Amino acid sequence: MQHETEIEVRYHETDGQGIVHHSIYFQYFELARVEMLKSIGHNYADLERDGIHLVVHSISCRYHLSAKFGDVLRIATTVERATTARIDHSYRVLRDDALVAEGKSTIACVNSDGIVQRIPDFLQSKP
Amino acid sequence: MQHETEIEVRYHETDGQGIVHHSIYFQYFELARVEMLKSIGHNYADLERDGIHLVVHSISCRYHLSAKFGDVLRIATTVERATTARIDHSYRVLRDDALVAEGKSTIACVNSDGIVQRIPDFLQSKP
Amino acid sequence: MQHETEIEVRYHETDGQGIVHHSIYFQYFELARVEMLKSIGHNYADLERDGIHLVVHSISCRYHLSAKFGDVLRIATTVERATTARIDHSYRVLRDDALVAEGKSTIACVNSDGIVQRIPDFLQSKP
Amino acid sequence: MQHETEIEVRYHETDGQGIVHHSIYFQYFELARVEMLKSIGHNYADLERDGIHLVVHSISCRYHLSAKFGDVLRIATTVERATTARIDHSYRVLRDDALVAEGKSTIACVNSDGIVQRIPDFLQSKP
Repeated sequence: MQHETEIEVRYHETDGQGIVHHSIYFQYFELARVEMLKSIGHNYADLERDGIHLVVHSISCRYHLSAKFGDVLRIATTVERATTARIDHSYRVLRDDALVAEGKSTIACVNSDGIVQRIPDFLQSKP
Repeated sequence: MQHETEIEVRYHETDGQGIVHHSIYFQYFELARVEMLKSIGHNYADLERDGIHLVVHSISCRYHLSAKFGDVLRIATTVERATTARIDHSYRVLRDDALVAEGKSTIACVNSDGIVQRIPDFLQSKP
Repeated sequence: MQHETEIEVRYHETDGQGIVHHSIYFQYFELARVEMLKSIGHNYADLERDGIHLVVHSISCRYHLSAKFGDVLRIATTVERATTARIDHSYRVLRDDALVAEGKSTIACVNSDGIVQRIPDFLQSKP
Repeated sequence: MQHETEIEVRYHETDGQGIVHHSIYFQYFELARVEMLKSIGHNYADLERDGIHLVVHSISCRYHLSAKFGDVLRIATTVERATTARIDHSYRVLRDDALVAEGKSTIACVNSDGIVQRIPDFLQSKP
């Protein structure tokens, strides 16, 4: 499964070097996951209300180019693997055809008490 | 009542102009309120666990000088007025003797369901 | 002059109370100003490249309702007053017909060395 | 080389799940690198003024436990490898004796025009 989200860099997301701070890309990845869920009919706010909390188990990013205020970036997100225990995503951040950054993450599912639970079948979208 | 908190500007708090983004001062004010509470023996995390949630009703800031990464700033916080319904704070952000910014806020108290409640007596510290 | 920008609350913008942190509204206001400029043909990134830096002189917000992750908010921005020295904006944050928050700001203009300069005529859009 | 920095979780760093948002750990790692530099006599603000800009090439984090508002966390940072081209750090985030998160990063050095340059000898501290 693949999905693409477009974002425009906001002023406060840049740092003293005039470029998007590296920590911001993880916010972009989260936004991309939320939009991907939406594209298959799921609202993450509703999931949390139903006691389905997705938590990040591990995440990484490799930076190739810097991004600036006002840049329009496309986040191409792929579900690399989905089991009852975890979902692995990969991300490619693109500005036109240039690769700005690449990321990977593994998310798990916990209930409202923070106890790990099975990822619901409807979230294990087959690629 | 008066209290002073020292903070050091973190890199990610600066923006593309190389200075602390104006929205960050409101995070500093919050930190100053938390430290002030601590100085009179109250831990805000414990208050929230007890169903005492302080919410910002209104807040403002006026900027005189810019602050840079690594600057050491002192936040001087004063309780201007405290009633059962609201607490008014004022803030002065100083770098050495220079006034960097000034702020004001009014906070109220809600319970865990978001319903406005009386501010507990022990929080209405007399100036 | 009036302009309306729509934003959707991002997950990381909420805090431990499950609502949008009060400091985030100032990021929304900035985004609204950038979009307003865009609507009259100006790109703020280009302005900065030309040595026209808009800085916040003072800003305030009053909160009426809380906003949650996934909420779609409209920021209605009005230029209340524009002179060669400053531009005053007011903001209304709306969710459907409900008023979530109201803000005001005054911005000034500095050059690349941080020296105050006249606000260019083309930015003093008449209401 | 090893260094330890203590931080206290700020309210706005938590998200709607009531825990520190996963993107915030990368801000903590940055703070830890800045403090580590300081401990060997270097001020990162001065380095940038001298045209020595450290940029993150890649970074990752694995989360073991969640952290809450008010938690006191220790970031133990180790220089794993330092060459003229890159410095690799590893990070352990601890609360008392419990391991909250672990991270790794690779940083490189660019000049004021963003061109990759040799990492100065004095930054290649031997472990």
